[in-house]
Amino acid sequence: MKLIAFDADDTLWVNEPTYVDVKKKLCELLSRYVDRDTLTEQFYDAQIKNLHVFGYGAKSFILSMIETAIELTNGAITGAEIQEIINIGRALIDFPIDLLDGVRDVLEVLAKEFDLMVLTKGDLVDQESKIARSGLAPYFKYVEIVSEKNEQTYLHILQKYQVQPADFLMIGNSLKSDILPVINIGGRAIHIPYEVTWAHEHIADEQLAGKSFTTLTGMSELLGLFSNLNEVV
Amino acid sequence: MKLIAFDADDTLWVNEPTYVDVKKKLCELLSRYVDRDTLTEQFYDAQIKNLHVFGYGAKSFILSMIETAIELTNGAITGAEIQEIINIGRALIDFPIDLLDGVRDVLEVLAKEFDLMVLTKGDLVDQESKIARSGLAPYFKYVEIVSEKNEQTYLHILQKYQVQPADFLMIGNSLKSDILPVINIGGRAIHIPYEVTWAHEHIADEQLAGKSFTTLTGMSELLGLFSNLNEVV
Repeated sequence: MKLIAFDADDTLWVNEPTYVDVKKKLCELLSRYVDRDTLTEQFYDAQIKNLHVFGYGAKSFILSMIETAIELTNGAITGAEIQEIINIGRALIDFPIDLLDGVRDVLEVLAKEFDLMVLTKGDLVDQESKIARSGLAPYFKYVEIVSEKNEQTYLHILQKYQVQPADFLMIGNSLKSDILPVINIGGRAIHIPYEVTWAHEHIADEQLAGKSFTTLTGMSELLGLFSNLNEVV
Repeated sequence: MKLIAFDADDTLWVNEPTYVDVKKKLCELLSRYVDRDTLTEQFYDAQIKNLHVFGYGAKSFILSMIETAIELTNGAITGAEIQEIINIGRALIDFPIDLLDGVRDVLEVLAKEFDLMVLTKGDLVDQESKIARSGLAPYFKYVEIVSEKNEQTYLHILQKYQVQPADFLMIGNSLKSDILPVINIGGRAIHIPYEVTWAHEHIADEQLAGKSFTTLTGMSELLGLFSNLNEVV
């Protein structure tokens, strides 16, 4: 193993619950205009539509909230209410980073033996800020923030760092972004599911057919695996 | 010379005029609420304030426009008008890329002899999209999109690519982002000013004292320099 990459959000630290909470506050703010189910559906559509032009991350999320609010109120929402939406959304920019169990211990051990990388998709400033706030930066030799995590992304990164797929291990919570594309290019992957997964990251079960990877219940189990890594991943 | 990096916006293609144009449209939209000078001043303040949390690029610009509009109208602006602001701002996401004179010829020649890099600050999705739209991607071996271009950024990139500062040449239109930090770490830099420079990129003349770099009037002059590069930069 030459390079071990970790996904960031919901792999190293808690992220999705903050987004869920912000969305809940948006529902409350707009409750006099629209019911929760309609808002949830429309907001998801706006997010997916905006992914292609705005990408992932806090700014894109805030813009989608604003657009959804305008659309669902037929433009009746006031400027002051939109400022409230922006204020609610600012929580996504500076929320305190809550590390997941075992993360620091695992990184402490692995950083001594391997080159470690944070490999995360999202907004540049946003993800850089979370890495800084996490205090984990010293464990990582490399940081790569990308706009999408697909097979092409992984191939590009391995080429850039001159690492063969068989010498690359990816660890993350998203089957779609962290596991499947890595296995498909001949890399290794360990899946550590998180309790909440954004709908956009869900994949159909049949996409997993014939794929081989290890799933752990938490980061702490990782160290046990590394004594006989070749057997388990 | 082992690595030649080009800034993107207003070095490879026209960018700032599109931002200036969007700002002009914002002035027109808000003209019944506020005069142009007040808006310009307040908007610049909002941009600078938001740089630290939202970074550079289209999404940050759009959010700053929205916040400025709400503040200057004391929240009286309507949701429909804010949707218009977002629509105006979407021009920043997909405007046609207009290459600057000589760019393609220069890249065509240099790519045969050197490793070329696009080294740009801004929003990830935004800059990736412009590079794709420019059609210039095939000339560049590397693309680095960063949140800020200061001495630390350049040192980090040179370390990552294992290039010595003396073997690195940066070409760009911003003295603040492309020239000064590169010279300060012992690299080489060629300045190609563009006709419009965003106020935030201006630097005081005294910061240039004792610095040595070449300024060209356009990209086309670059090839002439490369016959005796060591003498001129």
